[in-house]
Amino acid sequence: MADTRKAPRIGSLEHGALDAITDVAGVKVGHRTLDAGDIQTGVTVIVPHGGDLYRDKVPAAAAVINGFGASIGLMLVDELGVMETPIALSNTFAFGAIAQAQIGAACRANPAIGRELATVHPLVLECNDGYLNDIQALPVTAAHYDEALAAAAVGFARGAVGAGRGMSMFGVKGGIGSASRIAATRGERFTVGVLVLANFGRAPNLVLDGKRIGPRLVEALERAVAPPESGSIIMVLATDAPLDARQLRRLAMRAGAGLARTGSYFGHGSGDVALAFSTAYRVPHDAASPMPALAMLHDARLDPLFEAAAEATEQAIVDALFCAATVRGFRGHERRAFIEVFPGHGP
Amino acid sequence: MADTRKAPRIGSLEHGALDAITDVAGVKVGHRTLDAGDIQTGVTVIVPHGGDLYRDKVPAAAAVINGFGASIGLMLVDELGVMETPIALSNTFAFGAIAQAQIGAACRANPAIGRELATVHPLVLECNDGYLNDIQALPVTAAHYDEALAAAAVGFARGAVGAGRGMSMFGVKGGIGSASRIAATRGERFTVGVLVLANFGRAPNLVLDGKRIGPRLVEALERAVAPPESGSIIMVLATDAPLDARQLRRLAMRAGAGLARTGSYFGHGSGDVALAFSTAYRVPHDAASPMPALAMLHDARLDPLFEAAAEATEQAIVDALFCAATVRGFRGHERRAFIEVFPGHGP
Amino acid sequence: MADTRKAPRIGSLEHGALDAITDVAGVKVGHRTLDAGDIQTGVTVIVPHGGDLYRDKVPAAAAVINGFGASIGLMLVDELGVMETPIALSNTFAFGAIAQAQIGAACRANPAIGRELATVHPLVLECNDGYLNDIQALPVTAAHYDEALAAAAVGFARGAVGAGRGMSMFGVKGGIGSASRIAATRGERFTVGVLVLANFGRAPNLVLDGKRIGPRLVEALERAVAPPESGSIIMVLATDAPLDARQLRRLAMRAGAGLARTGSYFGHGSGDVALAFSTAYRVPHDAASPMPALAMLHDARLDPLFEAAAEATEQAIVDALFCAATVRGFRGHERRAFIEVFPGHGP
Amino acid sequence: MADTRKAPRIGSLEHGALDAITDVAGVKVGHRTLDAGDIQTGVTVIVPHGGDLYRDKVPAAAAVINGFGASIGLMLVDELGVMETPIALSNTFAFGAIAQAQIGAACRANPAIGRELATVHPLVLECNDGYLNDIQALPVTAAHYDEALAAAAVGFARGAVGAGRGMSMFGVKGGIGSASRIAATRGERFTVGVLVLANFGRAPNLVLDGKRIGPRLVEALERAVAPPESGSIIMVLATDAPLDARQLRRLAMRAGAGLARTGSYFGHGSGDVALAFSTAYRVPHDAASPMPALAMLHDARLDPLFEAAAEATEQAIVDALFCAATVRGFRGHERRAFIEVFPGHGP
Repeated sequence: MADTRKAPRIGSLEHGALDAITDVAGVKVGHRTLDAGDIQTGVTVIVPHGGDLYRDKVPAAAAVINGFGASIGLMLVDELGVMETPIALSNTFAFGAIAQAQIGAACRANPAIGRELATVHPLVLECNDGYLNDIQALPVTAAHYDEALAAAAVGFARGAVGAGRGMSMFGVKGGIGSASRIAATRGERFTVGVLVLANFGRAPNLVLDGKRIGPRLVEALERAVAPPESGSIIMVLATDAPLDARQLRRLAMRAGAGLARTGSYFGHGSGDVALAFSTAYRVPHDAASPMPALAMLHDARLDPLFEAAAEATEQAIVDALFCAATVRGFRGHERRAFIEVFPGHGP
Repeated sequence: MADTRKAPRIGSLEHGALDAITDVAGVKVGHRTLDAGDIQTGVTVIVPHGGDLYRDKVPAAAAVINGFGASIGLMLVDELGVMETPIALSNTFAFGAIAQAQIGAACRANPAIGRELATVHPLVLECNDGYLNDIQALPVTAAHYDEALAAAAVGFARGAVGAGRGMSMFGVKGGIGSASRIAATRGERFTVGVLVLANFGRAPNLVLDGKRIGPRLVEALERAVAPPESGSIIMVLATDAPLDARQLRRLAMRAGAGLARTGSYFGHGSGDVALAFSTAYRVPHDAASPMPALAMLHDARLDPLFEAAAEATEQAIVDALFCAATVRGFRGHERRAFIEVFPGHGP
Repeated sequence: MADTRKAPRIGSLEHGALDAITDVAGVKVGHRTLDAGDIQTGVTVIVPHGGDLYRDKVPAAAAVINGFGASIGLMLVDELGVMETPIALSNTFAFGAIAQAQIGAACRANPAIGRELATVHPLVLECNDGYLNDIQALPVTAAHYDEALAAAAVGFARGAVGAGRGMSMFGVKGGIGSASRIAATRGERFTVGVLVLANFGRAPNLVLDGKRIGPRLVEALERAVAPPESGSIIMVLATDAPLDARQLRRLAMRAGAGLARTGSYFGHGSGDVALAFSTAYRVPHDAASPMPALAMLHDARLDPLFEAAAEATEQAIVDALFCAATVRGFRGHERRAFIEVFPGHGP
Repeated sequence: MADTRKAPRIGSLEHGALDAITDVAGVKVGHRTLDAGDIQTGVTVIVPHGGDLYRDKVPAAAAVINGFGASIGLMLVDELGVMETPIALSNTFAFGAIAQAQIGAACRANPAIGRELATVHPLVLECNDGYLNDIQALPVTAAHYDEALAAAAVGFARGAVGAGRGMSMFGVKGGIGSASRIAATRGERFTVGVLVLANFGRAPNLVLDGKRIGPRLVEALERAVAPPESGSIIMVLATDAPLDARQLRRLAMRAGAGLARTGSYFGHGSGDVALAFSTAYRVPHDAASPMPALAMLHDARLDPLFEAAAEATEQAIVDALFCAATVRGFRGHERRAFIEVFPGHGP
């Protein structure tokens, strides 16, 4: 695991023990990295709890800040306010294979799915890693999803791993980043954790902890870099606060504030999508099971969570920037690690 | 082709030559039907024009009336107001294979996709045919999409064909239906064509041309039927009127009015999704190409199109009901043709 | 009160004791009718409970089926999922006066509003009664709102009263209609009540209990009627089922199904807006107060409520049609009662 | 007019001649300021062109980033993609009076409104100035709107004027700010102008040109300030680029990126609303008039406009901060000018 402590500390809020999305109790993350010549890609899976998500769904909601991209599953999330599979992240052309894997896994656990039981709805979000990865080769298979899921753990690598393997940001290497913040509200403490798949941003626009270092980064890169960016960022937010789907949509929207602080202006070609879920309760699939009867957080108490969401998102993006190692891949294309290109920001 | 003239004539507006979505010039429809024992499913493709849709997109918009279901591609349609692949319809678990097929087809035509060019975004909508079809067997392959696409034509079959092969509606056999209506507005005539993949409705609720015949249908079915419906309906609207994406979203919403007249109350488990596109102009992929410079229809002139959309949708649903032949499939499950169950409504 | 029993009984579900929105316990409706020559307009108020709505809000959500119209308050309803004043209905140009009245009433009850307390957000929906009423005269004052509120009761008049005084539908007189239906789900019974302010529809499109009687209505009207319709319909749904805002939005959408069955195709110029609220629990204004901790209804149990919403909306529209008496107003314009124009549909 | 050149120059893009929304040709801004003891409020009007907006509408769209607040007119903007009155800004309780004024002005110009012609839809956005202003006194009248409109000009004051008179931001005085940026795309140059009504932000969160100076501002304020913020920000964007409503919605969303860079995390109680319009063409009210037939900008060319929107919004907020003079008002409450509290950021 990269030493993420090299990265500047963003903001002022307290972070969790790991400064990662897995600080939210029960959440695990797994990667399957494909690293072989022209193939530089992978799968990352975020698991809200250790049970059967189809039978015990978690409340969820999305905020589509810029909908340039593909996704599977957000229509159901919008309508029903729940997710019923783990969240899978991968490259743009892998979602078919991954959706099939999610369907397969759910059907193995619940053989009546699509028959006596309702169908299951995959949940896949993506970014395009076509610069470093031979995306048309369709190297990601259903088995890779299963392996990422099997690898899910509280401790997980960041940077050029899993779905982040082939991603780029601000003209340097991007990938997976994570962070967490503690939100204290009227004597209660909740955790907001974020994991990003960062594949966005043009070098001149980079803002690091408020400093517009983009122009210096452009100089450091020395030469015109690659084609114009058409990247994206997926931002996954987890919290242990009891929020309903409407409130989770509000929380997800705040990821956009964190994103903007790193220099993004929600570019045309960047699919900027945030998805938030809560681990505070579960929604049973079976209508005969008792529904959760707990009090949601009052909306007027959400500000600390909103601030935590924005700050953790910014930190997670910076984390990706500092963790991602240089990768050479498709056709010899290379994205260098930010900390090599711009060592002044190392430790 | 089934004799759709058996079906009652809905409403009062003039229809096009074929009373089908292909009355909109340039639109073609193709099916690939899988009919083998437990496998009763298929693929239906709707093609807006004969060119390269990635390079010459058409304006499009969706109305999600009830988002219980999966889809690929609507996020991009919402953001950019265009579609860049044909519309594919199939069963719920087939969209992975079909998305891969759409990606493959686009990449063959434009090898720089995902590399020098932006990625391509599949467009797949689905219904669950798990009662008649062994949906977990994942029988649909990418090749089936290619075959459906190759079969696209102005004349096309309806009923238990293509994606409609395994679908059910109102306790009897459902599937593909189509219709068209002419909208006259200030001396100009436009066509609104609709194709539905009908897989929705409980028998007691059926309304046929305003008559609440559901209770009599229940009697005719004689016995308790199958599990509670969890169906869906996909409604695709085509028009040659010059509408922008905002206006097409308005048009798509009117499909809901036609749907409601058949007895639907937008049931919880029914993914009720409408997608509308216009053939009046194309949006180039290449930003260096000239953009279309034509006048859109004034919104105050849309009422005849809205009425046509509602009426054609109702007619297309009735068309599916009357065209769909009896199918026996998975585990011996059977859905009988409406015209057999309820012959009084035959010719 | 008109004898609403003249109206055909829509559908098959059981209705509440009054077949009105006030069958939902706690809900009251009040009117203030202005009936003086050119002035034919008024105010209708729907009150969810007898307490202080600012301090004890009720969950609410809206579905904007066609957003041609003005409204105040829906932005807050969307964001926070609550309403904090009664719902006021009136003519298009009255909402300024009524909003001021709602602000005034809330400030009298809670003098710290806008100062130590957050502001209060009015909730006003409207239709245009400019054919029968001298709308530019701005006859509605804040006092009329107060009077309508003071008159709120379980029993209330329908037809050409309150906000419905000057409204038209299908070329005849429109106005206020109401109905209720009982939704039974897994042994529990809930009530869905609807009140409509009906000001929509062209005569040729009228569908009455499934019968397309519009053409005969046109004949009965004998002469070309008035300017082209640019009406609207406001549909307010109340229920005692425990639903959160996301679920209430789903419920509100089903009003569109009921509307469509009367012949509406969601016309361009018709603001078709549905607003749903639940009386099952209250959301305190004060973040220090305990939040409700009750189980919401499982979404898979919503179908009976959805069916009830669609059927009660259709019935409420028919109720308005049969209750509304002939009115003559602005410049001698007249809208005749449907039951006079078309007496064959009397008892 | 305050010397806005004191404010730090945000970003790197070129600005227009005035660095104001009125750099977009045809746009004018007018204020009416109420400054009398407990009454510290006003009205600001933004006029897209000098003609009759009801007859010649301009394309428009909104992005509701956080919908805590009231507004009039956004439902129509969403549905039809146009605005038909000037944009009015004022305090939360003034919108009734202003809506009446807008209706009155439109009816004077077009006496058939609401009768032979469709109704007119006001467009009012607001923030709560209840700390400095006796908001319950309802001091704003229709005449004040008329006076603001009559005062509309290319050159206009900023800071504690018009609707900004009683507003607060980051614990100091807020109000009106403005800026513009030039977007160059494929050889063409377009202007994006922004005007904000800034009434948001807690002191500890202030970020000025990337510097997190909030903690120092808190020290400078010396004492606990006022009640917790429940402010809002209205961001109006104008451009001369030919964009349709869908594209304008995309542009409006980018105001959120600029807002976030000043320290906002889209707080719960802050109505963060952006409204964008284009002056490149007009949409006639009369359906018999020819519709504009011009090419919209290709979406792939929007990035310079998006960057301009984000940067101009940040600059406009900073402009408000530096322009707003100290105001004492209701009950002796005072908000001090930022440049007095924090003189180190003066020239």
